[in-house]
Amino acid sequence: MDLDVVFLGTAASMPTAQRSPAALLVRRGSERLLFDCGEGTQRQLQRSAIGLPDLQEIFLTHFHADHFLGLPGMLKTFALRGRDETPLTVYGPRGLRELFNRLHPFLGRLPYPLTVVELDAGERLERGDYTIEAFAVEHGAEALGYTIAEPERPGRFDVAAADALGVPDGPARGRLQAGDEVAVDSGRTVTPADVLGEPRPGRKLVLTGDTAPSPRVVQAAHGADLLVHEASFLSDEAERARETMHSTAAEAAEVARLAQVRLLALTHVSPRYFGPELADEARATFPETVVPRDFDLIEVPFPERGAPQLVKSGARPPRSDPVEAPMIEPS
Amino acid sequence: MDLDVVFLGTAASMPTAQRSPAALLVRRGSERLLFDCGEGTQRQLQRSAIGLPDLQEIFLTHFHADHFLGLPGMLKTFALRGRDETPLTVYGPRGLRELFNRLHPFLGRLPYPLTVVELDAGERLERGDYTIEAFAVEHGAEALGYTIAEPERPGRFDVAAADALGVPDGPARGRLQAGDEVAVDSGRTVTPADVLGEPRPGRKLVLTGDTAPSPRVVQAAHGADLLVHEASFLSDEAERARETMHSTAAEAAEVARLAQVRLLALTHVSPRYFGPELADEARATFPETVVPRDFDLIEVPFPERGAPQLVKSGARPPRSDPVEAPMIEPS
Repeated sequence: MDLDVVFLGTAASMPTAQRSPAALLVRRGSERLLFDCGEGTQRQLQRSAIGLPDLQEIFLTHFHADHFLGLPGMLKTFALRGRDETPLTVYGPRGLRELFNRLHPFLGRLPYPLTVVELDAGERLERGDYTIEAFAVEHGAEALGYTIAEPERPGRFDVAAADALGVPDGPARGRLQAGDEVAVDSGRTVTPADVLGEPRPGRKLVLTGDTAPSPRVVQAAHGADLLVHEASFLSDEAERARETMHSTAAEAAEVARLAQVRLLALTHVSPRYFGPELADEARATFPETVVPRDFDLIEVPFPERGAPQLVKSGARPPRSDPVEAPMIEPS
Repeated sequence: MDLDVVFLGTAASMPTAQRSPAALLVRRGSERLLFDCGEGTQRQLQRSAIGLPDLQEIFLTHFHADHFLGLPGMLKTFALRGRDETPLTVYGPRGLRELFNRLHPFLGRLPYPLTVVELDAGERLERGDYTIEAFAVEHGAEALGYTIAEPERPGRFDVAAADALGVPDGPARGRLQAGDEVAVDSGRTVTPADVLGEPRPGRKLVLTGDTAPSPRVVQAAHGADLLVHEASFLSDEAERARETMHSTAAEAAEVARLAQVRLLALTHVSPRYFGPELADEARATFPETVVPRDFDLIEVPFPERGAPQLVKSGARPPRSDPVEAPMIEPS
């Protein structure tokens, strides 16, 4: 089951030529979950090789404009494309319904079912083979982070052990994998523990949205494969980070260290930074840090198959940009 | 005095990978006038070599979402950049104040002066050496096009004639250019007509916004150097164009032909078209037609210096796109 996070928008508060406002797409198998939807998110998707899918679930972390101004345009585009059945659910903290009341004049009547769901910290959405859980962060009254977690998987089936114990090929092995005991021809009873290795951990992604450094994030992110943490500032702006309830790169790294995550990805990059200086500061505390650029993605394999990995990526240059054409004159 | 129109967004109703929603920037000397502000307009400017200027005047043609959803983000970005004195005026048809009432919750308190001005058709803004006039178009109740026009300029000063008539160099020639008579040493009175050629026309740009083909546009655009007309459809969708109060490429071309403009630029391109097919249809009626892509611009020189001209342009590929990096896998 593939799992990755596509960094559609990595800017803090306002876009730049390089970075679009906040938006992350989590892809798990055929599922597509969008977290935050800054202005221009629909076009970031269109400009990527992903295209704009008929998203069915969008999660907002909080209600600052740089995290939701892309919603009305995207929801209208779905309508203009003729979407009339596929339901859309938007999740977010308390206040989401009020936000939609205010957005209503810009949305008009949408031809597809739209459900708005307010979540409290600690609320968990069960998805069969994974869960999405909201947790409180520190960014003013109503702000949530999200954990996407898979349950433990059964241990690996030891074919050699099963052969040696005389477990026949076929359904008997399936029953052992499912946790049942099986009697074999020798008269012996084989237990799952006889043929299964240690249970294997599922994967865990944690997305903080905007937050000051917080023990709640440490707790939520404990042992995560990937922590996507905001880092709006460097340490020399720590005071400003406190005032605005944001984090410095060093603080995000300390959270990652305490939470013992496998990889830290910093996002919500202020226009004053390029990215590498944030990575440098964080790596002094937590070496496994990356600062993705827009359209980069991070693949999160099952732990036994390798470490989470940043895949740098260019978006397709928009086809409207002829490479050899002259530049617009600076003015 | 340089004059051009930068096509920041040429899409109809929804963005595509190639085209951003409606936005045109008129540059005249050091002035920057933005017409419409679809989602992502601030970033289109940032991604161009122009950058995002501290715009002082924004004109809306009407209140469909694809023409204004970029306003709240842009106005907030101005604030975040520390703009606290430079005033901003937004012009638009009646209903603009109501729009701003609805946008207010997303704007918060802006630290710079914002003025909202509702215009009626026929209202004219005098700018000293040019005027901006609103005219009614046909796209529902409240929709305006805009004419930007310069007055006639005095004829060219005929240096040889002035020499022959004994007009001395210096202030006397200035008085003649300004329209006064001048007595020369011979006792003769020299009139402006003796030394000035025919008055020379100023330039005229006409921007329709969204509209069905309309005699009002023909009238407003009469003799224009450049008519930027919407062309949402090809003729095989003429019925749909009627229902939605849009124009086909052929209809826009007929308007340009009747108005005897010098160059027709089609915009508001539906996602179903690439552009060249719209140009082909229009050129059958009006050969001087172009269909700009995003970031293209049209230079409008004084008529005696040449014809208006499309300058194809690539935006800077955003610096976040490493050219040699792998593509995001299609999904």
